[in-house]
Amino acid sequence: MEILRQTLAAIRPAGRQAMADARAHQDRLTKPRGALGVLEEVAVRLAGVAGACPPPLPTPAALAIFAADHGVHAQGVSPWPQEVTTQMVTNFLAGGAVANAFAAQVGTSVTVVDVGVASDLPEAPGLLSRKVAYGTADLSRGPAMTIDQAVAAIEVGVSVARDLTGAGAACLITGDMGIANTTASAALICAFTGADAAGTTGRGTGADAATLSRKIEIVRRGLEINGIPPTPPTRPAEGVPPAELGSPPGAVDSAGQGSPSGVVVSGERDAPSGVVDSGGRGTPSGSVDEALRRLAAVGGLEHAAIAGFVLGAAAAGVPVILDGVIAGSAALVAAALAPDAVDYCVAGHRSAEPGHAIALDHLGLRPLVDLELRLGEGTGALLAYPLVSAAVRVMHDVATFDSAGVTDKDAQTTLDAI
Amino acid sequence: MEILRQTLAAIRPAGRQAMADARAHQDRLTKPRGALGVLEEVAVRLAGVAGACPPPLPTPAALAIFAADHGVHAQGVSPWPQEVTTQMVTNFLAGGAVANAFAAQVGTSVTVVDVGVASDLPEAPGLLSRKVAYGTADLSRGPAMTIDQAVAAIEVGVSVARDLTGAGAACLITGDMGIANTTASAALICAFTGADAAGTTGRGTGADAATLSRKIEIVRRGLEINGIPPTPPTRPAEGVPPAELGSPPGAVDSAGQGSPSGVVVSGERDAPSGVVDSGGRGTPSGSVDEALRRLAAVGGLEHAAIAGFVLGAAAAGVPVILDGVIAGSAALVAAALAPDAVDYCVAGHRSAEPGHAIALDHLGLRPLVDLELRLGEGTGALLAYPLVSAAVRVMHDVATFDSAGVTDKDAQTTLDAI
Repeated sequence: MEILRQTLAAIRPAGRQAMADARAHQDRLTKPRGALGVLEEVAVRLAGVAGACPPPLPTPAALAIFAADHGVHAQGVSPWPQEVTTQMVTNFLAGGAVANAFAAQVGTSVTVVDVGVASDLPEAPGLLSRKVAYGTADLSRGPAMTIDQAVAAIEVGVSVARDLTGAGAACLITGDMGIANTTASAALICAFTGADAAGTTGRGTGADAATLSRKIEIVRRGLEINGIPPTPPTRPAEGVPPAELGSPPGAVDSAGQGSPSGVVVSGERDAPSGVVDSGGRGTPSGSVDEALRRLAAVGGLEHAAIAGFVLGAAAAGVPVILDGVIAGSAALVAAALAPDAVDYCVAGHRSAEPGHAIALDHLGLRPLVDLELRLGEGTGALLAYPLVSAAVRVMHDVATFDSAGVTDKDAQTTLDAI
Repeated sequence: MEILRQTLAAIRPAGRQAMADARAHQDRLTKPRGALGVLEEVAVRLAGVAGACPPPLPTPAALAIFAADHGVHAQGVSPWPQEVTTQMVTNFLAGGAVANAFAAQVGTSVTVVDVGVASDLPEAPGLLSRKVAYGTADLSRGPAMTIDQAVAAIEVGVSVARDLTGAGAACLITGDMGIANTTASAALICAFTGADAAGTTGRGTGADAATLSRKIEIVRRGLEINGIPPTPPTRPAEGVPPAELGSPPGAVDSAGQGSPSGVVVSGERDAPSGVVDSGGRGTPSGSVDEALRRLAAVGGLEHAAIAGFVLGAAAAGVPVILDGVIAGSAALVAAALAPDAVDYCVAGHRSAEPGHAIALDHLGLRPLVDLELRLGEGTGALLAYPLVSAAVRVMHDVATFDSAGVTDKDAQTTLDAI
């Protein structure tokens, strides 16, 4: 729990001054104002992440694929046999999966992390063995994980983020592998947004109509048996200090350091150090405990690890590009633990899975790629990476109206009411 | 006219066998069937373009930015002064525009082509001087170009495509620069789809509400004064041989070779040579003449050149990634001249300009990037280039279920009714 506690304490909101500077700079570049659409906001976001304008180019980037299995597979929620998780890990390590092809195309490294595969995997270059359990328990019959396991898996993600950024990665990219993991994602999205299972649950990688009906029913049962009401975890009311809620039964603290209660965000990235709370969203300790409980109840080990990976990126001050519905549901967990962590996220793509749009709406993120991908592995986020790089590159390379001697219509027609 | 005639004669439909092979190959790769969404169709399309499966990687790629001015600028359709066209050409050549930043990011060359800028540009590395005229005439007062000029500009585009592919480019990317060119695009989209000006005309790079109203009115006047009815150019009825229509008055043949009447597509790319017409869509000569007349009446010199660039790509058998509304309207011209040319087009992005979606619908193309860009220069197409490359790379790098030892659910559950 100590790693998680430190990580939550290290997360600052994005730098508002750097973001304002980035917006102003975009308006001086030789292009019509706003002409780069969504990419202008991406560049602004990355300026906020770095607390600097222009932000550094997000290179090199590192993809981490977190792999794990799911007890709920026994309920027939996927047409794929569980051993495909292991087979695909082997495929990643051999360089034969789509994620490998995309990573080669866009120039990122690939790290595979066994955080909970149900089989023993031989050691291999590119594989990190960080197994917390041989898969989760069946979420439709009780908690999928203990709180200890959930925290351990989060801390795996934090550590991988820390190691990759420590080795020089300036951008992290989430990936996942786990047969049946869209079921856990759907349940997490219900648990963290209050949405209904029918809206969050989709066909994943190929469920037929009967399987989809069963999957919705299983998600409902998982929420019910785990006592998760159809409302998001408690968030503080405006102006009301967060209530100190005790840890729920089962919230075992693996490091004996107490729960991360009372973690308060104390400044922005580009504020002078020592400034006290300047607008950070903070995290009520009660919602941290409840978020961990919900994650443990219906999440997967790779979901927990990806939540930690997002938190680790935020703590390290680097952007993280989220892949599809698995990452989106994990980011909901990260946001419940540390709302400011969302500032560090770029939504790589919109998955065909219906819950993903719900998760992104809740996070306030707009996806960059929307091509009906439904593969996972990090493929959608990898495709977004060159778009993110291009958005930042504009801030470095493009001339201003003044420097290029190009006439700026807005400098001429100041009353232009577009 | 001779270059155009030869080019139209050289265009074959995409190879259907290669496309079928590509679809079958996608289904053997270690991913759920269809999980790459729109990118699977991109790979299939490029297999058709090459007449081979897998198709070659589309690298290296070359961006050509066609620049020209517009007489209709005098009608106040843009808030930008006309000299910005020249200033931006200078900016491209100095490497300071967004297109340069994106090209550097995705690794393509940049060639700037003066096909009709209203000023004299000094010679510079990276600039091709192919000026057909010092801008067009005002389309709202009569034809913007003579037929001769339109054909000459098309042939500039064909020649640039031929030169770039001859020098090794395996993928062409369209770019444009021309203050007021969204007005000409809107008029072309009306002229080639039958849409109304109110639906095709947008704010371009920053028109205010009053300017937009004026722009719509100008587009309507241009169509009316040039005698363009609200229907697309004649297309042959099913099974009826195209009527031989004479050249309209003004359809001057600059090469003295007669109009490109009777051009018949005589085979597919991957059919054995000597096979007679195997389903090519052909082009009735009457619609070629009428297409040239409409292009000359309301188009721009860069629109004509980009139409030629598309035709040149198709004749050379390489894919061409279309940028936004300028390229979309030019591709309508190319499609009217040679319907099979559309097989070689990939829609790079969807512009914020409303006419663009109408053009893409008419062409049957789905854009890859949809980020509210409204800049032109080739920026949207450049962002799509890594996505196209990634789609093709999958066909080369990804393991099959058999080779990777991954269980294929579809091979197990053959009655799976997704």
